[in-house]
Amino acid sequence: MRNVICACCVKCGREYEAKPDLTNCECGGILDIVYDYDYIKTVFHKEDLSKRPYDMWRYRELLPVEADTPAPPLRVGWSPLYEAERLAKQLGLKKLWIKDDGVNPTASLKDRASAMAVAKAREAGARVIACSSTGNAASSLAGNAAAAGLETYIFVPSRAPKGKVAQLMTFGATVISVQGSYEDTFELSKQAIERWGWYNRNAAINPYLSEGKKTVGLEIMEQLNWQVPDYIAISVGDGCTIAGLWKGLKDLYAIGFIDRLPKLISAQAAGCCPINRAVETGEPWQPMEENTLADSIAVGVPRNADKAIAAIRESGGLTVEVTDEEIMAAQKLLGRSCGVFGEPAGVTGTAGLKKLCQQGRIPADAAVVSVVTGNGLKDVANAIKACGEPISVPSDMDRLLAAFSEREIPLR
Amino acid sequence: MRNVICACCVKCGREYEAKPDLTNCECGGILDIVYDYDYIKTVFHKEDLSKRPYDMWRYRELLPVEADTPAPPLRVGWSPLYEAERLAKQLGLKKLWIKDDGVNPTASLKDRASAMAVAKAREAGARVIACSSTGNAASSLAGNAAAAGLETYIFVPSRAPKGKVAQLMTFGATVISVQGSYEDTFELSKQAIERWGWYNRNAAINPYLSEGKKTVGLEIMEQLNWQVPDYIAISVGDGCTIAGLWKGLKDLYAIGFIDRLPKLISAQAAGCCPINRAVETGEPWQPMEENTLADSIAVGVPRNADKAIAAIRESGGLTVEVTDEEIMAAQKLLGRSCGVFGEPAGVTGTAGLKKLCQQGRIPADAAVVSVVTGNGLKDVANAIKACGEPISVPSDMDRLLAAFSEREIPLR
Repeated sequence: MRNVICACCVKCGREYEAKPDLTNCECGGILDIVYDYDYIKTVFHKEDLSKRPYDMWRYRELLPVEADTPAPPLRVGWSPLYEAERLAKQLGLKKLWIKDDGVNPTASLKDRASAMAVAKAREAGARVIACSSTGNAASSLAGNAAAAGLETYIFVPSRAPKGKVAQLMTFGATVISVQGSYEDTFELSKQAIERWGWYNRNAAINPYLSEGKKTVGLEIMEQLNWQVPDYIAISVGDGCTIAGLWKGLKDLYAIGFIDRLPKLISAQAAGCCPINRAVETGEPWQPMEENTLADSIAVGVPRNADKAIAAIRESGGLTVEVTDEEIMAAQKLLGRSCGVFGEPAGVTGTAGLKKLCQQGRIPADAAVVSVVTGNGLKDVANAIKACGEPISVPSDMDRLLAAFSEREIPLR
Repeated sequence: MRNVICACCVKCGREYEAKPDLTNCECGGILDIVYDYDYIKTVFHKEDLSKRPYDMWRYRELLPVEADTPAPPLRVGWSPLYEAERLAKQLGLKKLWIKDDGVNPTASLKDRASAMAVAKAREAGARVIACSSTGNAASSLAGNAAAAGLETYIFVPSRAPKGKVAQLMTFGATVISVQGSYEDTFELSKQAIERWGWYNRNAAINPYLSEGKKTVGLEIMEQLNWQVPDYIAISVGDGCTIAGLWKGLKDLYAIGFIDRLPKLISAQAAGCCPINRAVETGEPWQPMEENTLADSIAVGVPRNADKAIAAIRESGGLTVEVTDEEIMAAQKLLGRSCGVFGEPAGVTGTAGLKKLCQQGRIPADAAVVSVVTGNGLKDVANAIKACGEPISVPSDMDRLLAAFSEREIPLR
């Protein structure tokens, strides 16, 4: 990889050669892929993008793959960025865009990391990939690996919503549902991966995965024609996604594609917010219970807290915690105003943004991007809880009229 | 609309001016939009496409909208077309592509029709759109209308899967769940639409909707670089989708973008196949019961049988009926071999294709496209029934080993 210098531990600074099967530093710290931006500047220009396919691999100069590594089969990335004028008005913002990453092949942002895992597993000559996941990393890995003809072993906590489990089973993964928390799930996967030597897709261990996730940031900037927004809001669980987003933005700044950096908005569930709490108190992060229906970000022991906390601080960002009620309200708000249906964790960034606007912590002339990280179809049970049931009648006009009038539905 | 001549009844031939609120002919027949291909040939060339956004509106010269009608907000279309080498081999086909329309904004092909409905409703100055639907047309209308700031009244049969209902409610539609068949649902919606004068999105009544659906055919051909496959397989319910697909292919043939036409494969559920039965017997179609778990195509009284039957016959196409078991097997097959998770109706085209291959009704040197019309996340309950439950263990390596050995899972 001509564009990559090495992998460097974020904790102790030790450097490693960027082999395809990298895991953590010997000190336990997480590695970060270090690029040769001077070189990249000479070979990568904005104009090059006009002729490339619209997927995450259009930014190949900024991705840690060999020149001849094929892009995995599923078309990941280039999700739509919608300008949300009515929602901006409601929230009192000058400009607002919604990035809908729920239209990825397996319906979440995690496809970006899993596609990278498949590419690197192939470089490593692996036939089997494994991970633990609250659900989306799992289903995205299972789908992307199936398309590439690779086998998967996947560990999910037993609370994972049915939609995600159904995806896994359909994609032919061997699925281990762990009776316990995400932390329990992670631990068992770690032992199994060590024992059988599977390729490791745990995003907080394999440093390449954040590099896949960062493409969401690259896309946002290209879709905004390199005009930098003031804030980007995103939900935070184990910290890999916000760290990846930040890495992408910094990459673009380093090669001169953008001239400043936005501030990050780190939105966590009030019932599980160890990363935000660390940022707010300035203390090291402490484990928390996983008390939220936003299952994808219910991570009490965030495995990538170091990179995430550094990203939020470096960006001069904001933290915000939202209740489950606020999350479900944001789900409806996005559906009604934008036609975007996000899962609970997927809309937590927007819930946080709304709260910050209400608290007056975002200036009214701000331009903001809010990332929806997963599709609401992943967790239908909670959506129905939030929205209620439809009007139920037989096929009879009088009964329909009665039902409308009972519910005081205005008709015109 | 300079590109449109008129709307013409497929039954009696009567012509109508192409106003935005067209419904059926006075004789009850369905209208078809008639284009001025000579004119279109002078203004539309393949090369024009290279600079256009990748969504269904890139084919505007072939779409029945005014030049200044804005494209609705959600990004519909340009779904991926995957070459499925391993699946082709399994089925004994030379070439096979899977068109995954489940990655549309509300996760089904119906977004193409609903986006068209929103565009035409705006032209008509309507503020409210209504439809009856087995679920996907409903959720796509609700989403596309919400994004455009329009209200929706939506009628679904009470059997509609939870995923689709959750979408509707989140998008803020007024949802009427009708206790009865799809036919009962359709009837009540018809009365209500007449009573309140809502813009009608029923695809078998509003002739513009097939014109939205046809973009799936336009895309397939462009994605294949205008090289025509031998067959295109698709599931068939009320007949609008296959009719739309055929219309798109004929459009391209008429303007010289393709030099021949493929044969259609009309796949229906064995428990509900009135259209196929009519094609096979040469008799007029007869209503059937709705005995299939593939809810989107469980249409006992197909409202667009005329156009669908004509399309299948004109193309020299094949019909095939599949059991629910064959549908669920196809769901797993697509998941495992392609990483594509389709809903039961969505994979029925592939189930039919597999059956035809087994029956020796498709030549081994054939090139085939199979369209997956909706995302498996829409109907998780049936997917779980098909695929079974995961291995469930506590976070304990010994228990994991025991579970693996009990299930005879090979480990390497």
